[in-house]
Amino acid sequence: MIAPAEPLQNGQNGTSHEAQRAPRNPYAPVDDFLSNVNRFKIIESTLREGEQFANAFFDTETKIKIARALDDFGVDYIELTSPAASEQSRLDCEKICSLGLRAKILTHVRCHMDDARMACAIPGLSGLDIVIGTSSQLQQHSHGKDMDYIRRSAVEVIEYVKSQGLEVRFSSEDSFRSNLVDLLTIYSQVDKIGVNRVGIADTVGCASPRQVYDLVRTLRGVVSCDIECHFHDDTGCATANAFCALEAGATHVDTSVLGIGERNGITPLGGLMARMIVADRDYVKSKYRLEKLKDIENLVASAVEINVPFNNPITGFCAFTHKAGIHAKAILNNPSTYEILNPSDFGLSRYVHFASRLTGWNAIKSRCEQLGLHMTDAEYKQCTAKVKALADIRRLTLDDTDAIIRNFHKSIGSNDDVPLVDGLTEGEKRTLEADMPAEATSIV
Amino acid sequence: MIAPAEPLQNGQNGTSHEAQRAPRNPYAPVDDFLSNVNRFKIIESTLREGEQFANAFFDTETKIKIARALDDFGVDYIELTSPAASEQSRLDCEKICSLGLRAKILTHVRCHMDDARMACAIPGLSGLDIVIGTSSQLQQHSHGKDMDYIRRSAVEVIEYVKSQGLEVRFSSEDSFRSNLVDLLTIYSQVDKIGVNRVGIADTVGCASPRQVYDLVRTLRGVVSCDIECHFHDDTGCATANAFCALEAGATHVDTSVLGIGERNGITPLGGLMARMIVADRDYVKSKYRLEKLKDIENLVASAVEINVPFNNPITGFCAFTHKAGIHAKAILNNPSTYEILNPSDFGLSRYVHFASRLTGWNAIKSRCEQLGLHMTDAEYKQCTAKVKALADIRRLTLDDTDAIIRNFHKSIGSNDDVPLVDGLTEGEKRTLEADMPAEATSIV
Repeated sequence: MIAPAEPLQNGQNGTSHEAQRAPRNPYAPVDDFLSNVNRFKIIESTLREGEQFANAFFDTETKIKIARALDDFGVDYIELTSPAASEQSRLDCEKICSLGLRAKILTHVRCHMDDARMACAIPGLSGLDIVIGTSSQLQQHSHGKDMDYIRRSAVEVIEYVKSQGLEVRFSSEDSFRSNLVDLLTIYSQVDKIGVNRVGIADTVGCASPRQVYDLVRTLRGVVSCDIECHFHDDTGCATANAFCALEAGATHVDTSVLGIGERNGITPLGGLMARMIVADRDYVKSKYRLEKLKDIENLVASAVEINVPFNNPITGFCAFTHKAGIHAKAILNNPSTYEILNPSDFGLSRYVHFASRLTGWNAIKSRCEQLGLHMTDAEYKQCTAKVKALADIRRLTLDDTDAIIRNFHKSIGSNDDVPLVDGLTEGEKRTLEADMPAEATSIV
Repeated sequence: MIAPAEPLQNGQNGTSHEAQRAPRNPYAPVDDFLSNVNRFKIIESTLREGEQFANAFFDTETKIKIARALDDFGVDYIELTSPAASEQSRLDCEKICSLGLRAKILTHVRCHMDDARMACAIPGLSGLDIVIGTSSQLQQHSHGKDMDYIRRSAVEVIEYVKSQGLEVRFSSEDSFRSNLVDLLTIYSQVDKIGVNRVGIADTVGCASPRQVYDLVRTLRGVVSCDIECHFHDDTGCATANAFCALEAGATHVDTSVLGIGERNGITPLGGLMARMIVADRDYVKSKYRLEKLKDIENLVASAVEINVPFNNPITGFCAFTHKAGIHAKAILNNPSTYEILNPSDFGLSRYVHFASRLTGWNAIKSRCEQLGLHMTDAEYKQCTAKVKALADIRRLTLDDTDAIIRNFHKSIGSNDDVPLVDGLTEGEKRTLEADMPAEATSIV
């Protein structure tokens, strides 16, 4: 299923690389009839789970912008806050259902007839995502209902929603701390009365990947309907868990833009794209407009007043920045050496960092070529030694480094003592003038 | 292995909860003689992998601060940039080895005798982490050496390091795109000559959790030495992969603070702590000073000039913030309902958000009690309706919401028309004065 070493297309930094086919990875799981990694669907929940993010306040106009952007990106479903949450929530549901989007619109409601009736009255709605807590913790400390009550409510609500001609999903909440027999019993029962999807939810973010695989695989043998999964990220496994759920036969994954949601959120849309494009590049590229990802993330980040994390998959500011000399050299030869994702798939560029003590002469040579300065290999190595020496004593900007390179180039064949950068202290000058062993710079 | 529903201690918001033992989770993997989730060790690489982060420039003083903080936290090993990278890198290795830290100090060097000799000459160093690229991509586009050359170099370097009385690890690079037979052959060979650890590295971030489990499990049957793992986070699986590696028998995990490293980095120290405390709370709490985590993250974030991501595990600003009314109600009853981590384990507090349209009357009641304002349940519900109505039309601050609550309380039993908040437009006033159905506010 994993197809590593997908031949990368031409880089964006002016170099061109011959596409090449690497041998199949012997550790990749064998193709499996259960797996849906090459045919999954996304239920995008920025406008439901995302609204539960501490910083989120979405006015109607913002909700419309986000819904249109997600539709444009190509998500299969857009999930909205329950119309029972507040009057404006209900009006916003109506508004978004009236936009004529290609994506199906869902709303997420408690397993209660009042909520179901309110939701079913919204014109243009495609379906309801019904949820109820099934863990002993939630039975005891939240709604106070037992499994018999839960089963009776589920059947009543599902049959009502179906009678209204809408899609319906039934999900437990906190599935990974619920009793297995209870879960399988209720899922089996709602499957028999024709629910469209059952959902499992790691509401507290406790599940681990192999545990997810096991539960979904078990459930796959019990129900014939689709299986939706929802993973919180409290312990950093939300993206991995979604992937393992798909491997085990889940069909739909819940996401939100940047992962925003309760606490530190859920499987992020971008993170899922990064994971899935490695698994099936053709499917992901044919279905989702990946070049829109950065704009959608910026839209949502701005709406909820946060910064995109420095380490965000794909769009983090350094996701395609290569720094150590040994990485830079290989990337300049062939980006597939140190990139499993191709930045051009997302409308982005890679960047080879050369302004540090960890740089190497291949990176400096590449920069010299960008600057139109040509030297011999021995001179590139000498120049690299100067960059590394200064980078050892202070933080170098791009400008600093370009100045060192230009001044070094100017000094070649000249007897003048050209200072490589301005404003050096006496100590810094002494360090710069000291000869570095060529070996130490050429090999790192 | 997973021990969900660990009884949480008393909350920090003044409520007290009876500890309770939940039934064992039927999906938790069975205890497995292979698994090291309850006896793993950390090789902390902020001062090596982290120095390869685009924004990192660590001067000597900063390196010392970070090393001391990591030592204080309780990491088992601290890994440093190769002394061959630059003269200052060599001097910094010497300096950190001279600090007398409890943690063992390693340096990460290429599989080359020159580098090994330079490293072994550093007084106080505990060991060397030797690395060489083994994927076809790296063989072809990076160092240009074949497997025979790699094996010969490995044996020469390992025997030399052992002769100097130091620990030695041999790691392949890009292990998940290397030939399986090549890998097992070289690992088996270095194991026989007494290497302390072999390392597998997902250098490009392509590996998925079950693939990691399979490779480590296979390797566990081939070598008798320790197994170290290193996971990049390009596709969002670095924490999950580390966990699955430990389940399969890996013994050591590489981390960096906030995950900083090449591109978007590796398994973060904090993320690993979140994952592992769910798996074995006693082990993690006995070994690591978790209450120091936030300070270390702030130290490193400041040194590399980044913000801690909003969604960072444990220390993200909203990792313990509960917003939806249904979550708030249950959390106020018993935090284990919606928290798998206990904020007090990390010296942090939870926060129940009540200034939004998604709030419910239990959250408002709790806030009223904090403010010393007492009402009947019916009055709390009415007050909640007012908060939700205003939150529907504009973003509410904490102050706004407290003002609404205080003014509502003041208006009880009075015939005066007290405005609930100042500065409302006429439209906002009309909305606020409209009666909300009590039902819609009491049940969300």
